[in-house]
Amino acid sequence: MPVITALETHDIRFPTSAQLDGSDAMNPDPDYSAAYLILRTDQPQLQGHGFVFTIGRGNDVQTAALDALAHLVVGRDVDRTLEDLGGFARTLADDSQLRWLGPEKGVMHMAVGAVVNAVWDLAARRAGKPLWRLLAEMSPAALVDLIDFRYISDALTPAEALSLLTAAAEGRRERTAMLLAHGYPAYTTSPGWLGYSDEKLATLTRAAVAEGFRTLKLKVGRNLAEDVRRCQIARAAAGPGVAIAIDANQRWDVRTAIPWLQALAGFDIAWAEEPTSPDDILGHAAIRQAVAPVPISTGEHTHNRVMFKQLLQARAVDLLQIDATRVGGVNENLAILLMAAKFGVRVFPHAGGVGLCELVQHLAMADYVAISGRMDERAIEYVDHLHEHFVDPVEVRQGRYRAPAAAGFSAQMRPETLLRYRFPTGAAWQPLAPPAAPPLKTG
Amino acid sequence: MPVITALETHDIRFPTSAQLDGSDAMNPDPDYSAAYLILRTDQPQLQGHGFVFTIGRGNDVQTAALDALAHLVVGRDVDRTLEDLGGFARTLADDSQLRWLGPEKGVMHMAVGAVVNAVWDLAARRAGKPLWRLLAEMSPAALVDLIDFRYISDALTPAEALSLLTAAAEGRRERTAMLLAHGYPAYTTSPGWLGYSDEKLATLTRAAVAEGFRTLKLKVGRNLAEDVRRCQIARAAAGPGVAIAIDANQRWDVRTAIPWLQALAGFDIAWAEEPTSPDDILGHAAIRQAVAPVPISTGEHTHNRVMFKQLLQARAVDLLQIDATRVGGVNENLAILLMAAKFGVRVFPHAGGVGLCELVQHLAMADYVAISGRMDERAIEYVDHLHEHFVDPVEVRQGRYRAPAAAGFSAQMRPETLLRYRFPTGAAWQPLAPPAAPPLKTG
Repeated sequence: MPVITALETHDIRFPTSAQLDGSDAMNPDPDYSAAYLILRTDQPQLQGHGFVFTIGRGNDVQTAALDALAHLVVGRDVDRTLEDLGGFARTLADDSQLRWLGPEKGVMHMAVGAVVNAVWDLAARRAGKPLWRLLAEMSPAALVDLIDFRYISDALTPAEALSLLTAAAEGRRERTAMLLAHGYPAYTTSPGWLGYSDEKLATLTRAAVAEGFRTLKLKVGRNLAEDVRRCQIARAAAGPGVAIAIDANQRWDVRTAIPWLQALAGFDIAWAEEPTSPDDILGHAAIRQAVAPVPISTGEHTHNRVMFKQLLQARAVDLLQIDATRVGGVNENLAILLMAAKFGVRVFPHAGGVGLCELVQHLAMADYVAISGRMDERAIEYVDHLHEHFVDPVEVRQGRYRAPAAAGFSAQMRPETLLRYRFPTGAAWQPLAPPAAPPLKTG
Repeated sequence: MPVITALETHDIRFPTSAQLDGSDAMNPDPDYSAAYLILRTDQPQLQGHGFVFTIGRGNDVQTAALDALAHLVVGRDVDRTLEDLGGFARTLADDSQLRWLGPEKGVMHMAVGAVVNAVWDLAARRAGKPLWRLLAEMSPAALVDLIDFRYISDALTPAEALSLLTAAAEGRRERTAMLLAHGYPAYTTSPGWLGYSDEKLATLTRAAVAEGFRTLKLKVGRNLAEDVRRCQIARAAAGPGVAIAIDANQRWDVRTAIPWLQALAGFDIAWAEEPTSPDDILGHAAIRQAVAPVPISTGEHTHNRVMFKQLLQARAVDLLQIDATRVGGVNENLAILLMAAKFGVRVFPHAGGVGLCELVQHLAMADYVAISGRMDERAIEYVDHLHEHFVDPVEVRQGRYRAPAAAGFSAQMRPETLLRYRFPTGAAWQPLAPPAAPPLKTG
């Protein structure tokens, strides 16, 4: 009967703004960061790791929000918690005083998600399985019990979810074999950051195609003429068989987005991502209708299942992103994946940042095996950046994510990273920091 | 040329959960709290005060979010800041790293709102006017310059806002005189908290009507039979000439809200508030259509102007609440009031809590004088609770808010309150706290 004895937090930041990696129209100089937590138990080997990805300032606020959840976690019996992970997630989201700070959005809700994810990491370690497999081997009824249907029952009832999961139960074994043999498609954003020169864009595009990627994404939205030129360069470098998506990172109003996207439509856009405010469901619907057939997409900043529900109900998007650390953790992402499956909308998970690839691959793979049953014409975002800081980093080969084999949620950072990048006291943040030692690559 | 020298923060909490004041279907045991800030300048008398209202746990997280904004404020020239308060508010909302934590929602956005409000407090003190009058005497063009039209320009353009404000400029003098003579209507929620007995409900309802209130509000949503009984008691005690609103505090799903509200429709409901998730724009629209003519309302948890825009575009509400500390401060509330005026939707500001009455009265009064030009069939929520902690508390007489006369935004708490209720070190939070000294009533 192990017990959770501590919720330990770490403010971890990487000084990435120095290189302009990760720059886009709204985020010119991010320092990729993680508000990181370790759930400790009275058994030293039994731990759970989780985090919220942020881009620098405010990571301390996010870390304080993790601390604010400790009273709901510390002292819990591990086995009883793992027996009812649906109830556990609801307990965190429903603390009546903390709920006022959202409800179910922003800093406090992301903190709930990180703690829920850490408990899933612990659950998967205890089960001796990677998280995707733990989820994919649960019964349809057990999966339904994980979902909080509050505020989404008008779009998806428990009975509908059960019926969908039961239908998908057939073929789980074949799909697991397929996943283990071939992996899950990846797409790359690495060539397309706004801070890169035209030459670097062309070189990185050719390299990505040579590596096996069939989908690329460019950041757009700063200047239309520049976007036209960059689309031309990328299209010429990639060749005709490669899908090219664009991402405006919320740069436009509805009335700006429409002519801008019409001007880029000739480049055979795979999807146009975050054309406007992530909160603007009706705005996305209006843009989609006006620029059809350019596919419209959003989701990495969509803050909970209620917003995803409406994007689907309003037919506001052609496809969706999910993000592993934006919403209330694994449970809420399962609700979103179930709604997407019901509405027949494809999901292209958001990743990059710090550790987002590591986490979200598990959700996409569980979706393939046990929920939607599909991975054709889908892909998980991939950025080759900062993976060396993780104990179980993603492995992407020939444009596909390999299925993780280690037990857990791939969330654990290396102990030396937690020391070196701790803000503001770690060695990486000292005025004359020595260069980092070469990372030990395990992937 | 005074300069802002410090952003000083205080975690202030009142142990209100002991009395069940403020209990409702979602918030059974709140400890009313404020994440409080003081902007200090190099002139000791020149200060600005602001705060975010919370209900207890998490007030430390909210306070940390205020601290995270200090780098955008400290060192600023006061006069140059006050000359461009629109630009100042956008600077806070647009910090590219902090924006990731929302965007424009939850803990980080409420912190932006509190700092913006504190600068408005400073601006009104420096002008020697109460805030409502400072706003009501600005030119239409100057008011338009305060608004961030990003993401709302499809519903309200700067030209439309200017035209609306210019039309409302006529009659400002007469409306100011009317406001000073008669005050602004209040409504009261004090009789209707869920924790109160039937006898207390009846007694407080009769007392409220005798005091002059023409609108009351009851909390509902825990149990339908109980709600029917409480509506009967309140209606019998109030008599037929008094409007009775109900507030479900997000308790229901769409499909639960519809039959529940239909069962209460016979009590001549003035409005049904927060029937479901504040994020569910389409859900509110569906409920409104199904239960017509029961008026539907929401807004106290609506997190920014983009969400208010959609509530109006979708015809999801008959009226709206605004809240002084939920969104990005005075500027964003002006955007919301302008959109409400354009769409012809009445605003009944949310108040209660700690200091929400003190703040929001200024916004409603400025709206009456300079934006909508109306206060008939409108009212500001009023709860007679914790006002004694403010230097310039609201004054409600015969069911109407009297227009504040003191310079500023009425946001300043008494110095002894900041000491006594500081969490967790203040005297009020010690295990054997002596009873509070009788407050010095100034209102």
